[in-house]
Amino acid sequence: MLLPSAYDPGVVAALSGVDAKQIRHVFFVACGGSLSIMHPAKFMLDQHLDMPSDVYNAAEFVARAPRRLDQQSLVILCSMTGTTKETASAAAYARTKGAVTIGLTLDAKSPMGQAVDHVVGFEAPYTTGVPIDAKDSNYARIYQLVLGFVALAGGEDLTQPLIDSLQALQPAIDRAHTTFAPQFESYAPGFAKKDVIYTVASGASYGAAYSFAICVLMEMQWINSHAIHANEFFHGPFEVLDKDSTFILLKGLDSTRPLEDRADEFLHRFGAVENILVLDAETLDLTGIDAQFRGNLVPLIFFDTLWRFAYKIAELRQHEMLEGRRYMKKLAY
Amino acid sequence: MLLPSAYDPGVVAALSGVDAKQIRHVFFVACGGSLSIMHPAKFMLDQHLDMPSDVYNAAEFVARAPRRLDQQSLVILCSMTGTTKETASAAAYARTKGAVTIGLTLDAKSPMGQAVDHVVGFEAPYTTGVPIDAKDSNYARIYQLVLGFVALAGGEDLTQPLIDSLQALQPAIDRAHTTFAPQFESYAPGFAKKDVIYTVASGASYGAAYSFAICVLMEMQWINSHAIHANEFFHGPFEVLDKDSTFILLKGLDSTRPLEDRADEFLHRFGAVENILVLDAETLDLTGIDAQFRGNLVPLIFFDTLWRFAYKIAELRQHEMLEGRRYMKKLAY
Repeated sequence: MLLPSAYDPGVVAALSGVDAKQIRHVFFVACGGSLSIMHPAKFMLDQHLDMPSDVYNAAEFVARAPRRLDQQSLVILCSMTGTTKETASAAAYARTKGAVTIGLTLDAKSPMGQAVDHVVGFEAPYTTGVPIDAKDSNYARIYQLVLGFVALAGGEDLTQPLIDSLQALQPAIDRAHTTFAPQFESYAPGFAKKDVIYTVASGASYGAAYSFAICVLMEMQWINSHAIHANEFFHGPFEVLDKDSTFILLKGLDSTRPLEDRADEFLHRFGAVENILVLDAETLDLTGIDAQFRGNLVPLIFFDTLWRFAYKIAELRQHEMLEGRRYMKKLAY
Repeated sequence: MLLPSAYDPGVVAALSGVDAKQIRHVFFVACGGSLSIMHPAKFMLDQHLDMPSDVYNAAEFVARAPRRLDQQSLVILCSMTGTTKETASAAAYARTKGAVTIGLTLDAKSPMGQAVDHVVGFEAPYTTGVPIDAKDSNYARIYQLVLGFVALAGGEDLTQPLIDSLQALQPAIDRAHTTFAPQFESYAPGFAKKDVIYTVASGASYGAAYSFAICVLMEMQWINSHAIHANEFFHGPFEVLDKDSTFILLKGLDSTRPLEDRADEFLHRFGAVENILVLDAETLDLTGIDAQFRGNLVPLIFFDTLWRFAYKIAELRQHEMLEGRRYMKKLAY
């Protein structure tokens, strides 16, 4: 079976090199922000195919050396620049075990690009500063990889609704900026003064919460943070909640939304409304995005729009975003 | 094949009800502190058997409804009191899919105890206040479940070295209290004044770091916290590090130790020594614990000894541990 040409050519080429019916395990492997997209990728795979998978930090993956990894494994990696040493090493390690490797990166000539069997390119505003269309983002490409693999492995072929939905994504993001702008405007001054801001989500949105916590708040603003799973919240973390504590809650549209609803209720019961920023996907105009993929795609909307919130906070804190880092890409470690 | 009688009778009984050769997936399902033991359980399974597995928060598990879950699944759950609603629901859900369920709990008559096919008991000082032998703890029982299952499923039979190692565990913990006491004594006054304390670990120790962060520091001391994976640390979180920021680093003996070593080096390069508490398993006398299980068992030593540190902090903060909670088991939510 060949993949429909509606898919990105890089995705088609990569998956044409995979004997999907022979694959018995998928490993999603990366670090940091690139690892964050692996959580929603696994979420999508879990719900669409009877296929086991794991999400591992790249260094953990190599050191752990799961026995399951072999020539019937598909290992999907991501490193934006392709220079992440742990991820390049993980690709090389996976190949020594006979696994098929696909690497998402902006740079096919990078160490990770060279280390994998197949490269899938994507676009990111990060390096060029030029706005991209979200249908060309790492999220969009990995979702194509997952559903393309699902189709090839004998699952349902959902190509057309996915492609159509991705086409409708950027306009939905553009509208979401407008929808969320008043909230960002009113919450930024208070949040800019905080030392600790937690993010909360579940299901497909957990990765976006994780990424915003560790790559934006911690890395670029030196604000203490971490992502709390919306149900784990009730099993310890909620005890820190008082009128001063500060949370960003992502309420998505996937099947775990009731978990986020419950967290929302508790946060507003004991927290202060001005310290609880809730991004609710139900308030968005998602025209053109197929109902079955709304849960998968709203995390991109959350993450994209939250950047604007982050820049507002950065301005108020007078702490530059990328240039404000003290260690990352500034010294050897 | 029958399991050797050296195993706990509950473990033997539970696994005798499992047709191990028919199982093709293991789900480890729980919430909060009980979820924390599932991470090292999966770590052990990953390294000893070619068997896919997942670790899920119980509510996420049900809402996600992984397609993989079926009558060839083994679902291992844990709830100390057995009253955790999400976990009891997860057990019931798994059974509707035909999966075999094993529940670890102190109370076989509890809702979760009633909801599973097989109950495995354990002991915890939590409810009775009476010290236990660590060989009877939830960790010890789940490790027996994992390696018993490995043996039954056709993997190596490591019963004897595991049982011998568990016998040697409590004496090792008792010695570790003495080893770590001077560190706890000297770090407690400083840590008691902190608003944010991160825990850092990888591999088999990640669960202990997670549990100490969310169930002890956040839940019982209202100190902001979260567990950071030792390699993820370098992909965002490390930017919060300065001379004031506060970390507890667990350096275990499993194959991911180099990740923790690297975090140690960086923490001491840019942090203040008085704010970085390192528990290094290499300083411990682990006589009687088989070399191949030291990595798996030191997390119990970390967690057990860290309770003493927590009580020291609680005393200095004049904030009671269990009685100091404001929401958990105090109101309906």
